[in-house]
Amino acid sequence: MSTSHNADCRAAAEWVAGELRRLGCREVEFLASGTHPVVWGVGPDVPGAPTLLVYGHYDVQPPDPLDQWTTPPFDPTVRDGQLFARGAADDKGQVFCLLKAIEAGGGGGRGSPLVNFRFLIEGEEEFGSRVLFELLRREPERTRADAVLIADMAYIAPRWPAVYTTLRGLCYAEITVRTAKTDLHSGEFGGAAPNAHEELARLLGRLKTPDGKIHVPGLYASVKRPSKRELATWKRLPFKEGEFLRHRVQAKALTGLKTHSVLERLWALPTFEIHGIMGGFTGDGAKTVIPAEARAKVSLRLVPDQKLKTVERQLTAAVKRLAPAYVQASVTFLHGADPATVEVTHPAFGLLDQAFREVVGRGTVPARAGGSIPVVPALGKSGAPVILTGIGLPDDRLHAPNEKLDLKQLWDGIKVFRRFYELLGEKGV
Amino acid sequence: MSTSHNADCRAAAEWVAGELRRLGCREVEFLASGTHPVVWGVGPDVPGAPTLLVYGHYDVQPPDPLDQWTTPPFDPTVRDGQLFARGAADDKGQVFCLLKAIEAGGGGGRGSPLVNFRFLIEGEEEFGSRVLFELLRREPERTRADAVLIADMAYIAPRWPAVYTTLRGLCYAEITVRTAKTDLHSGEFGGAAPNAHEELARLLGRLKTPDGKIHVPGLYASVKRPSKRELATWKRLPFKEGEFLRHRVQAKALTGLKTHSVLERLWALPTFEIHGIMGGFTGDGAKTVIPAEARAKVSLRLVPDQKLKTVERQLTAAVKRLAPAYVQASVTFLHGADPATVEVTHPAFGLLDQAFREVVGRGTVPARAGGSIPVVPALGKSGAPVILTGIGLPDDRLHAPNEKLDLKQLWDGIKVFRRFYELLGEKGV
Repeated sequence: MSTSHNADCRAAAEWVAGELRRLGCREVEFLASGTHPVVWGVGPDVPGAPTLLVYGHYDVQPPDPLDQWTTPPFDPTVRDGQLFARGAADDKGQVFCLLKAIEAGGGGGRGSPLVNFRFLIEGEEEFGSRVLFELLRREPERTRADAVLIADMAYIAPRWPAVYTTLRGLCYAEITVRTAKTDLHSGEFGGAAPNAHEELARLLGRLKTPDGKIHVPGLYASVKRPSKRELATWKRLPFKEGEFLRHRVQAKALTGLKTHSVLERLWALPTFEIHGIMGGFTGDGAKTVIPAEARAKVSLRLVPDQKLKTVERQLTAAVKRLAPAYVQASVTFLHGADPATVEVTHPAFGLLDQAFREVVGRGTVPARAGGSIPVVPALGKSGAPVILTGIGLPDDRLHAPNEKLDLKQLWDGIKVFRRFYELLGEKGV
Repeated sequence: MSTSHNADCRAAAEWVAGELRRLGCREVEFLASGTHPVVWGVGPDVPGAPTLLVYGHYDVQPPDPLDQWTTPPFDPTVRDGQLFARGAADDKGQVFCLLKAIEAGGGGGRGSPLVNFRFLIEGEEEFGSRVLFELLRREPERTRADAVLIADMAYIAPRWPAVYTTLRGLCYAEITVRTAKTDLHSGEFGGAAPNAHEELARLLGRLKTPDGKIHVPGLYASVKRPSKRELATWKRLPFKEGEFLRHRVQAKALTGLKTHSVLERLWALPTFEIHGIMGGFTGDGAKTVIPAEARAKVSLRLVPDQKLKTVERQLTAAVKRLAPAYVQASVTFLHGADPATVEVTHPAFGLLDQAFREVVGRGTVPARAGGSIPVVPALGKSGAPVILTGIGLPDDRLHAPNEKLDLKQLWDGIKVFRRFYELLGEKGV
């Protein structure tokens, strides 16, 4: 976690708390308070109505590389009906949408709640939700509700709202290789001394081969293949490989395990990605150093039924096995989440489906998600259905420069969630 | 070239100029002046005596990683008879030695020069000497001398002074791979999108295999094998592989082309080293970005009779050939030098040999050097013998943290060069 935006995160938490107070919450509290507190809220009492727990996060991904943003990441800017800002879709803009849907009901700007709201809006989702995990372990009663609503996702395609049945987990690690006591001069030692960057590059090349296979023994053993029925559903989704490549990936080719469809690779298979490499000399100029140490930030996305703890052990073992004897290799873990599975059969899903159908003309399709929301399994522990949905679009550029939210999606979203709250209050679950 | 130490470099140039004035130079000038001027000096006229051109450099390598220095790199500190500082050996300390050897002769602190000195003390050796190259192309008469003296090297072992017959050249490059238009989110795209760091790691792994072979077609074609006689000489040098590994490399194993001896690998074969890797996310925390671009700082050391321009073409071709079709790969060149060969038969070498013999009890052995001094071929163009020697020791940690110079070597060195100037003045060449 970077500490350079602590004051900004605190301001975001204060904004959320202010909104909750304005909506008439009986309780508004900073829980497990630090620089990124969990904002807890309890809405006005609505006797006899169901309880809905709203989860979201006000923290965002680091905005770098800054020079690739058309307008600054923290100066929200509207161009062509799109709101550009870090967090526009993930997840500040969607938290805004959920709150404005309450306010939209009238009641002098305070809305008429219709259901018993509980709010858990956290500030550490992007680096593992450790504080919230610990809180929910100590105080599981915070999640007691008839349903949990999370809007941190996107439509599966324009005009195709979705609910998500799985989230991938995450195992974020740093691999360190050390080859000598100190950095060496390539003039003196080049040709006979080991080079940490060279060993790291080779190790990374062995961990994942060009065919997309990840060489971590045991990794694929607990991967559960999607059912035939689910695979058949995916074939009917408005997903076109060529379009995905050209308009979203914007590369010359797709990569990965060609033995599986692109949607399987994105939703139902573990991944291994290199995020950054440190060590040696990266400044201006031409320093001829043979680095003694090199490190890589890497992560694996995990799928049902993989377990984070098992994968951590497997990765450590693989790294040690793949490094030559003269290389010291080690792994530390920075962040992680188990994959999550959500049943979408509870009646609450029917109400959301109806709300989308009425407002945007099409109900929700069940899909899977490639991303991770670490705390989802903990939120569902009380047995309440966890509704994973969202108003984003697939091209919102989450985690990347020029992240955006389509304002039409936002206005529609406010109407959809407003209608969902009404249906939930009227019909119950 | 980094610009963050411009003022410090300027101060170093001013110090050199001040010393030259104090030694009675008739001319002291900043040539091709910028932030790192070439300091030019013409010593007092000594009619009938030979002319000796002294070359050295006052610029140094970047000091990072700073946290590995026991004392700060720019606060020279003596511990156990060793002077620790960036530049202690490479090359400020040795320039100091050459100048103090003039002063050592008396003459009211100005020395008695004995020969006609010319000085070229530059400030861009560590990043290619471009300014000096250009200057010598325009004004080749600056190098007109009976001999050129360079003390930027080390003894071959403690108590074994050396003169060097070859220097390796250098081809310093940045390899860039691009896989997509923008960075992507590994949750959304992981499993199907190309990753620039992954492609770069693979490309680097293909450019040099674990056997030490560099896969740049044509690279080895013009490598001239040392003569049998030279190889036989090397076997008699006080070089022990195990000692080199344990005390100097300080690693668990030596690497490189096992088909050749360690000294051949260090002196007579080209190398390929990775110095640093840029791109993606390397900050605090756990950003799950799939980088669209990754870059590597790499260099090859070149040996006789390789040509820099040829190797640049070969490397570019190899990178383009080894990258998959969906990866855009390119190479830019930051710094370079042709390898240099020096004949050590001129009588001036005999005088230096005698000086070392008288002062330290052993004459100079001919050896090769793994490092590069880009301007050496240009300095020798007038036909004057280029004497490459030095007072460093093999464990001086050039370019690395805790660079040092042994003070006994410095005091001996002042006596050696003082005696060399005397012999040159007396006997001529």
